[in-house]
Amino acid sequence: MRLRLTPKETSFYELFAKAADNLVVGAGLLTELLGADKAGRADIAGRMRDAEHVSDEITHDIYRQLNSSFITPFDREDIYMLASLLDDVMDEMDAAADLVSLYQIEELPDGVADQVDVLVRAADLTAEAMPRLRTMKDMQDYWIEVNRLENQADQVYRRLLAHLFSGEFDAITVLKLKEVVETLEQAADGFEHVANTIETIAVKES
Amino acid sequence: MRLRLTPKETSFYELFAKAADNLVVGAGLLTELLGADKAGRADIAGRMRDAEHVSDEITHDIYRQLNSSFITPFDREDIYMLASLLDDVMDEMDAAADLVSLYQIEELPDGVADQVDVLVRAADLTAEAMPRLRTMKDMQDYWIEVNRLENQADQVYRRLLAHLFSGEFDAITVLKLKEVVETLEQAADGFEHVANTIETIAVKES
Amino acid sequence: MRLRLTPKETSFYELFAKAADNLVVGAGLLTELLGADKAGRADIAGRMRDAEHVSDEITHDIYRQLNSSFITPFDREDIYMLASLLDDVMDEMDAAADLVSLYQIEELPDGVADQVDVLVRAADLTAEAMPRLRTMKDMQDYWIEVNRLENQADQVYRRLLAHLFSGEFDAITVLKLKEVVETLEQAADGFEHVANTIETIAVKES
Repeated sequence: MRLRLTPKETSFYELFAKAADNLVVGAGLLTELLGADKAGRADIAGRMRDAEHVSDEITHDIYRQLNSSFITPFDREDIYMLASLLDDVMDEMDAAADLVSLYQIEELPDGVADQVDVLVRAADLTAEAMPRLRTMKDMQDYWIEVNRLENQADQVYRRLLAHLFSGEFDAITVLKLKEVVETLEQAADGFEHVANTIETIAVKES
Repeated sequence: MRLRLTPKETSFYELFAKAADNLVVGAGLLTELLGADKAGRADIAGRMRDAEHVSDEITHDIYRQLNSSFITPFDREDIYMLASLLDDVMDEMDAAADLVSLYQIEELPDGVADQVDVLVRAADLTAEAMPRLRTMKDMQDYWIEVNRLENQADQVYRRLLAHLFSGEFDAITVLKLKEVVETLEQAADGFEHVANTIETIAVKES
Repeated sequence: MRLRLTPKETSFYELFAKAADNLVVGAGLLTELLGADKAGRADIAGRMRDAEHVSDEITHDIYRQLNSSFITPFDREDIYMLASLLDDVMDEMDAAADLVSLYQIEELPDGVADQVDVLVRAADLTAEAMPRLRTMKDMQDYWIEVNRLENQADQVYRRLLAHLFSGEFDAITVLKLKEVVETLEQAADGFEHVANTIETIAVKES
């Protein structure tokens, strides 16, 4: 008699790693968006929509796996929460690209590049941290750094608002830009929510 | 010796069903609001306030029951969370009706009817799903459909913002309408939060 | 043989009390801000920043203690959540003071004093409730009162928005004031989130 080999299934760790890698793709598309003209923007918004669909699929894969697994590496509701928060970040990035294209925004103020820069670094940190989920080793540094980045994002965001309100822009342009800038700020918040959830899991396991 | 009959108490399931039915009432009032003149709006906002009080009472009934029950059908904190999230949706619907009346808004742009339509359907779905809480059967369809509706609400919302920013409205009118439109969007988000919490409960029980 | 005296460590209860006392300081600074001129405002924003750093340190002390404790007075994730929500309130107060200074706002409309008044009372109630965390006695009154205050804050907030949109202010001034008013509203929401989390803990323990 032989041991039945179960078909290799993708582990939760691999799915979370894929979700985080996809956020690196999203942050990269936001960087491209900064330098693009109007035609380029529509194309980038389209590719962002594709990345958002990939994110939805990974999230559903995690949920499906969750419903068919008797044993999970950590609490079921934390797996659910983490999957859902990673997907939220992608949704915000997608919304930002969609709004820039939809509102026919002429020019993005300088600070937006700083916001995107924070998102690129937060995405990289998150993707680098995911393989460490298995051992929960060295998670403290990731968590502290993402929280530091989020504080920095807050500062950039408030300075950007002050710039928008400086009188340089007409009220409707202010409203459009504010919507974009807020959406990017929510993406930065989203990375912090992911990091906080991982911290909560680490606290439970400790 | 006879079995002592415990005085029939309203079960958690019945209270959640009442809370969801009340959201159907709220969504119906929003539909009435769309076709009402200014006098009608004040009357509808008043009836919405009544529905909001009913929601508060149901929520408190659930909390009171929770504090006096030794055994609960699912985790105490999930019962608490679900009650609180159902109440949040009512609060947003009430806020929307209040704002339309308070800001003396002349005319609501077309897309608002699409937002309200999504809320009516989400309320109906939620009310239909509540009796299935007992068995947690066929919850997947409810959850997928509410999430689909919320994605649709997002699209409607962004198109509405683009319309508000099109130059057709003066800046102050844009700000007023944006507040109403955002509040309705938060009500749609609220239905998704309810569905996600029910999904989390289902995941724990599975 | 003598019992080894363990070095006295600050308990979770004391740390939560310190965090809540710090919110009383923050609410007091907001009251000062209302009567200050521009030079005074920058000074107050600086002292608020100091209070915000104190809050960060207390939060980290709680996390550190959490990671080194085998036994905790209630669930680890609830301690984590409560610490994080208390810190959130401080962040909103700090943001409000920063924005008033940053936007060079000339005059704050009357309703802002009502918002700050609610925050002062919510901070006092929270600080008074913290010593009762140990026994969870008489928490119901605290929780009901904070929720009542938050409903009141909602009313003040909506009336303030209606005033901002009345035509008295130009659009950019409306946007600046709206940002301040929203941040104060989020601080009031934050006190409710703290109270709700304490209620959830009480529900679990009951």
